[in-house]
Amino acid sequence: MKKYLVEFIGTFFLVLAIGMAVVIPGLGNFAPLAIGLALMVIVYAGGHISGAHYNPAVTIAVWLRGRCATSDIAPYIAAQLLGSIAASHVALYLKDNQVLTPSEMNVTHAFIAELLGTFALVYVILNVATAKSTAGNSFYGLAIGMTVAAMAFAFGGISGGVFNPAVAVGVTIMHLAKLSNIWIYLVANFGAAIIAALTFKFLNPEDK
Amino acid sequence: MKKYLVEFIGTFFLVLAIGMAVVIPGLGNFAPLAIGLALMVIVYAGGHISGAHYNPAVTIAVWLRGRCATSDIAPYIAAQLLGSIAASHVALYLKDNQVLTPSEMNVTHAFIAELLGTFALVYVILNVATAKSTAGNSFYGLAIGMTVAAMAFAFGGISGGVFNPAVAVGVTIMHLAKLSNIWIYLVANFGAAIIAALTFKFLNPEDK
Amino acid sequence: MKKYLVEFIGTFFLVLAIGMAVVIPGLGNFAPLAIGLALMVIVYAGGHISGAHYNPAVTIAVWLRGRCATSDIAPYIAAQLLGSIAASHVALYLKDNQVLTPSEMNVTHAFIAELLGTFALVYVILNVATAKSTAGNSFYGLAIGMTVAAMAFAFGGISGGVFNPAVAVGVTIMHLAKLSNIWIYLVANFGAAIIAALTFKFLNPEDK
Amino acid sequence: MKKYLVEFIGTFFLVLAIGMAVVIPGLGNFAPLAIGLALMVIVYAGGHISGAHYNPAVTIAVWLRGRCATSDIAPYIAAQLLGSIAASHVALYLKDNQVLTPSEMNVTHAFIAELLGTFALVYVILNVATAKSTAGNSFYGLAIGMTVAAMAFAFGGISGGVFNPAVAVGVTIMHLAKLSNIWIYLVANFGAAIIAALTFKFLNPEDK
Repeated sequence: MKKYLVEFIGTFFLVLAIGMAVVIPGLGNFAPLAIGLALMVIVYAGGHISGAHYNPAVTIAVWLRGRCATSDIAPYIAAQLLGSIAASHVALYLKDNQVLTPSEMNVTHAFIAELLGTFALVYVILNVATAKSTAGNSFYGLAIGMTVAAMAFAFGGISGGVFNPAVAVGVTIMHLAKLSNIWIYLVANFGAAIIAALTFKFLNPEDK
Repeated sequence: MKKYLVEFIGTFFLVLAIGMAVVIPGLGNFAPLAIGLALMVIVYAGGHISGAHYNPAVTIAVWLRGRCATSDIAPYIAAQLLGSIAASHVALYLKDNQVLTPSEMNVTHAFIAELLGTFALVYVILNVATAKSTAGNSFYGLAIGMTVAAMAFAFGGISGGVFNPAVAVGVTIMHLAKLSNIWIYLVANFGAAIIAALTFKFLNPEDK
Repeated sequence: MKKYLVEFIGTFFLVLAIGMAVVIPGLGNFAPLAIGLALMVIVYAGGHISGAHYNPAVTIAVWLRGRCATSDIAPYIAAQLLGSIAASHVALYLKDNQVLTPSEMNVTHAFIAELLGTFALVYVILNVATAKSTAGNSFYGLAIGMTVAAMAFAFGGISGGVFNPAVAVGVTIMHLAKLSNIWIYLVANFGAAIIAALTFKFLNPEDK
Repeated sequence: MKKYLVEFIGTFFLVLAIGMAVVIPGLGNFAPLAIGLALMVIVYAGGHISGAHYNPAVTIAVWLRGRCATSDIAPYIAAQLLGSIAASHVALYLKDNQVLTPSEMNVTHAFIAELLGTFALVYVILNVATAKSTAGNSFYGLAIGMTVAAMAFAFGGISGGVFNPAVAVGVTIMHLAKLSNIWIYLVANFGAAIIAALTFKFLNPEDK
């Protein structure tokens, strides 16, 4: 139960940071940094309790890697989705429910961007937060948060820089992405997470 | 006595950074980063002596969590207020006492923003700087300072991004906030700190 | 084989971050930060497997310093070049193959800038990631990534801020630099790496 | 001899970063970050050899605190000055020797700004890099570099944000400050360093 509350709180503040950064008036090029820093601090705060996934694709990848109990998958994802939905409504309320028109995306470009960005995120997470060779380090939150910042700097203009199915739900609620495009995020994010988990296992065969 | 001097110095430089960043001509979107970095470095400098609260709401939360002596509460808060008042006057002097007109705030929005931002700050602090599971880490200052940066990116346009009753006094002296709104900060910051302390205790029941 | 894949992945994401940051519409002064953060996270992710060179000049320097097997030099550099070439084509594709005209450079200035920037990068890497006195630290990725950021802030307008022969190939493919100027990068980057390795050995004589 | 070379290299890159960041065309509000990051990485690279002062005022403070041999003071300061002078000329050359007109400063304001900023810098350095209670941490470079960034964000518009007598010489050579104002930096920087060293000794009486 404690773990699920931590996942709720963490995803809530991640999505809140996204909503406040990009809903009008936005932070422009500061948004990737603001969002990455929010993820960083909430990873440092919650990692010792829940592992600080805050992302259904990460939960699946950590499970494939053998660091998440099967019985935790459903409640983790539920907590993440609830956190995202709650934060989206708070952000909309604080921004006076301004209705934005999501910008058009090139679907193929966006799919590739989400695939690459999520692969990078999960690849970094598994190596800095679950590998035996890096155990006990103090940089895991910095690495994870700044991966989202770096990938959002790279891909924000292509796909919005989501890399997280729970965030995909949140940005759809906040009118930052079209509902008809949500499959891009779901397929690319989960798909990339699985590829990254398999890559990690190939690269670290002795690390069970 | 040494601890109180450290609290004075730390709060002085935090409020000075705020005053210099936002009093005309301001740093714009760099202000949250400039302020968060100032907090980060002063946390790293003073943590080993006073615990580096620099915030009356944090002092109350750390006391509730059992890591601050009851006899330290009053002198800690007094030192923080003195540091804030001194820094406010230095910033005003260096900025040639330009009198700003505080921007109008939506009181309900500002209250929610301060409540959420302060909850995040205290939640992060208790988990990275007082939890047994994260003892000995090198990231506590980074996490604490960047929480203020992330929350100020999110809420700076809503409430000013104060999250700290001593800072609330300072920004009021510097004409960045109205005296008639200071209750928003006091109630929301202390209230959020208490909620965050109770949340921490619920999440870490074995960590006395 | 695993090490080479890590070098491919790391260099791929480094060059992808560069391509996405500077190809139109670019990130402006955020580009050095975006690129440095990308390098930082990929160093943290791959350091425990391959040493996280992602740069042929670094591979040569690490070999001179005695921390890279001679048999690894060729496959490391091949993997880095393949990663850079792949990323360059992905970035061009995602940017709709816009053809840029590389800006003119003062050759002497660019050569000095690349020499100094690469010296700084290799000097930092050898000291933070291979010196016995700093073993076990958590800051190596931060130091390495932010050296590229700092040197790109300094020299971006002079030479493009490459500091890496694999990146030189990538920026040439992406029309960010002229093919006729690629020798500047190759000579200055490898030359500076050798000077930095000799400097390290002079400064740390007991550290074999 | 090795220590002095490290001090030369470190101060060289610090002053070079300053020159390239602020000489036309400058980085604007990115300059404090660019400069602070440059200091951070060069502290991480050289700390294990020379202590990474790169600043005559820091050398005096570390000597007062008992962590610098008296016989090292003169060669350390000489190496720092040589590094600064060399870097200033390189920056001028790379910027085509554009002659700037230093902006006017309010002498009293500038003196106070340099006093406060240098106090913060030395206070942070002594606590994170020489105190027994923080020994073995991974954050010392981050804290030191970002103190300069935070203080330069705060005071850049008042005094230029120098906080370092060797940098004062460099910015005077680069026409960023008037020769007639150099006493402000020398007096304020050394004065603040002495005050900070005495403050450290008062706060850490058992730490000899």
